[in-house]
Amino acid sequence: MARSASSSSSVITAAMASEASVKVIDGKKVAKDIRDEINAEISRMKDSIGVVPGLAVILVGERKDSATYVRNKKKACETVGIKSYEVCLPENSTEEEVLKYISDFNDDPMVHGILVQLPLPSHMDEQNILNAVCIEKDVDGFHPLNIGRLAMRGRETSFVPCTPKGCIELLHRYNVEIKGKRAVVIGRSNIVGTPAALLLQREDATVSIVHSRTRNPEEITRQADIIISAVGQPNMVRGSWIKPGAVIIDVGINPVEDATNPRGYRLVGDVCYEEACKVASAITPVPGGVGPMTIAMLLSNTLLSAKRIHNFK
Amino acid sequence: MARSASSSSSVITAAMASEASVKVIDGKKVAKDIRDEINAEISRMKDSIGVVPGLAVILVGERKDSATYVRNKKKACETVGIKSYEVCLPENSTEEEVLKYISDFNDDPMVHGILVQLPLPSHMDEQNILNAVCIEKDVDGFHPLNIGRLAMRGRETSFVPCTPKGCIELLHRYNVEIKGKRAVVIGRSNIVGTPAALLLQREDATVSIVHSRTRNPEEITRQADIIISAVGQPNMVRGSWIKPGAVIIDVGINPVEDATNPRGYRLVGDVCYEEACKVASAITPVPGGVGPMTIAMLLSNTLLSAKRIHNFK
Repeated sequence: MARSASSSSSVITAAMASEASVKVIDGKKVAKDIRDEINAEISRMKDSIGVVPGLAVILVGERKDSATYVRNKKKACETVGIKSYEVCLPENSTEEEVLKYISDFNDDPMVHGILVQLPLPSHMDEQNILNAVCIEKDVDGFHPLNIGRLAMRGRETSFVPCTPKGCIELLHRYNVEIKGKRAVVIGRSNIVGTPAALLLQREDATVSIVHSRTRNPEEITRQADIIISAVGQPNMVRGSWIKPGAVIIDVGINPVEDATNPRGYRLVGDVCYEEACKVASAITPVPGGVGPMTIAMLLSNTLLSAKRIHNFK
Repeated sequence: MARSASSSSSVITAAMASEASVKVIDGKKVAKDIRDEINAEISRMKDSIGVVPGLAVILVGERKDSATYVRNKKKACETVGIKSYEVCLPENSTEEEVLKYISDFNDDPMVHGILVQLPLPSHMDEQNILNAVCIEKDVDGFHPLNIGRLAMRGRETSFVPCTPKGCIELLHRYNVEIKGKRAVVIGRSNIVGTPAALLLQREDATVSIVHSRTRNPEEITRQADIIISAVGQPNMVRGSWIKPGAVIIDVGINPVEDATNPRGYRLVGDVCYEEACKVASAITPVPGGVGPMTIAMLLSNTLLSAKRIHNFK
C-alpha cells in the first residue's frame, strides 16, 4: 500500500504536466527527519543523564487493525531509541484490570508516556479509562485538561494530540505562513478537527470549522488559504471547493474499492487529489502525507515528557 | 447610567421609524426572569432538602470597580436567596493567604461556588490561584478542565463561563435558531470569545473567530447570521459589517467621552448601535443587554452546583 516518497511525487509530476507547480508535502520524509532528530536527542539525553524515554502501550482485545497500530508504534519506538512497554489484555478483561495497569504505569519512573489503544471493548467506559492516565504522561493529549490548555490563550500546552500536531508540523516544515491566514478545518472530532482548529488559532490564523451541519461547506472552504480536512469521506472536497493557491492537509485515510489493486481496495483522502492538484499550491498525498506524522508526533511527545519529568533541556 | 428597558426600546423605535423591524434583546428583563426562576428553584430546594446554595467571593485589594462588582454580586445573591460569603483581603496579602481561604471554602459544605474577583494584585500568580478552586465549585468556569470539556464533543460541561453562557441564553430566550447558522465571534479571550465560540459550535453553528490578526474582519463578519462581539473597541463593528437580518450580541461595554452626560462619559458597545439597527434583525443594547446576564448566570451556576453536590433534581 505504501509507495515511496519519490515514486509518489513522480506520479504527481506526470499527471500534472500542465499544472506542475503544486508541491507535494512529503509526510514520509518529514516523519523520517523528525525520527532522526528524536534519535539524536535521545542519545544526548542518555549520554548526559542516563535516562531512556519509555512508552507504555495498552491493547485490549484482538482487533487486527489495533494490533497493527500497536506493532507499528513499537517498531517506531525502537528506531528512535524509546523503550516500549506493551500490555496485551484479552477482550473480556475488566475495566479494573485496565485501570490497574494504568495506575502501575502512572507510578513507574521508567515510563514517560502511556497510550491506551482505542477503541476499547464496548463493556468499558472509555472516558473513565482515558481519564485515569496521569496528565504528565498523557502523550496522546486527549485529556480535557490538555484540550482546555490548548484552547486558552497564555496557557502552556502540556501535550498536543498527535495527528493535529503532525498537521501543523507539516505546515511549519514547508514554511507555510499561518499567521493572519484564513484556515478552514473540515470535521470537528475531539482527536483531530477540534484540536487542529485550536492549534491554528494559537498561531494566529482566522479559523472556521466546517462540519456535518454546515449548510454551505463548499463556499466557506473556498475562502481558505489553509484547509485541514478530517472527516473520513473519500473525495468529498472537490476542486471547486479550493481557492487557487491554497495549501491542503488531508487527514482522511479512506479505503475505496479498486479491482486493479491486489487487495481489492486503495486508500484515498477526504480531498479529491487529482482535482486539488490543479488548484492548490501544496497538498499532502494519501497515503504518505499526514499518516506517517502521527506516530512521529507520538515519539516526539514521549521524548518531551521524559525531558520534562527529568528537567532535561 | 442604566436606562430602563422600556425607555431603551422606545428610543430605538423613534430613531428607526423606517426600519422599525429590529428587535431589541432586553437583557435586563431576561436576567430578571432568570432570577425569578432561580428564586423559585431555591425555595423548592430549601423546602425539600433544607439546603441553601452558598457563594463565596474573595476580593483582594481596594480597586473601586472590583468592589462594585462584588457588591452587585452580593446584592444579586440576596435577591434570589443564595447565601453569600465575602472575604476582603488587603492589597498586600500574600498568595498563601488567598490560597488558604480558597482551601477552606473548598472544604466548606455550605459553599457551593467560589469566585475570586479579578484582577488580582500583580504580585500574585493568577493562574495558580484560580487553579486552586476545586473544579466542583468553579462557578466562573475558567478552569482549563472546564474549557476542555466545553471544547470536546460528547463531554458534559461542568460550568460554562458566565458571560458567554449569558450570550447563548439570550439567543435561546429570543428563539434565535443556532443550528446550521453561520456565527462569527469577534475576539478570542479566554473568558468570553473562546468559550462563546465553543458553545456556538456545541449547538451546531458553523463558527469563525475573528481577532486582531484577522486580515478582513469586515468581510468575514458580513457572512454571519449571528455575531457575538467581545473585543472592547467602541463602535468597531459598523453597519457595513453586518449581513441584513443578522442577530447581534454585543458584549463590549466601553466608556466614551460624552459632555452631555453628568458623568462625562457614556457606555457604548463594540457595535455601532445606530447603524446596526438599520441592518440587523435583533440586537442587544449597551447597557442593558449582555451585562445583566453575567451575574444572572453566576447565580444559575451556583444553583446548579448546589443541586449537583446534593444530587437534587
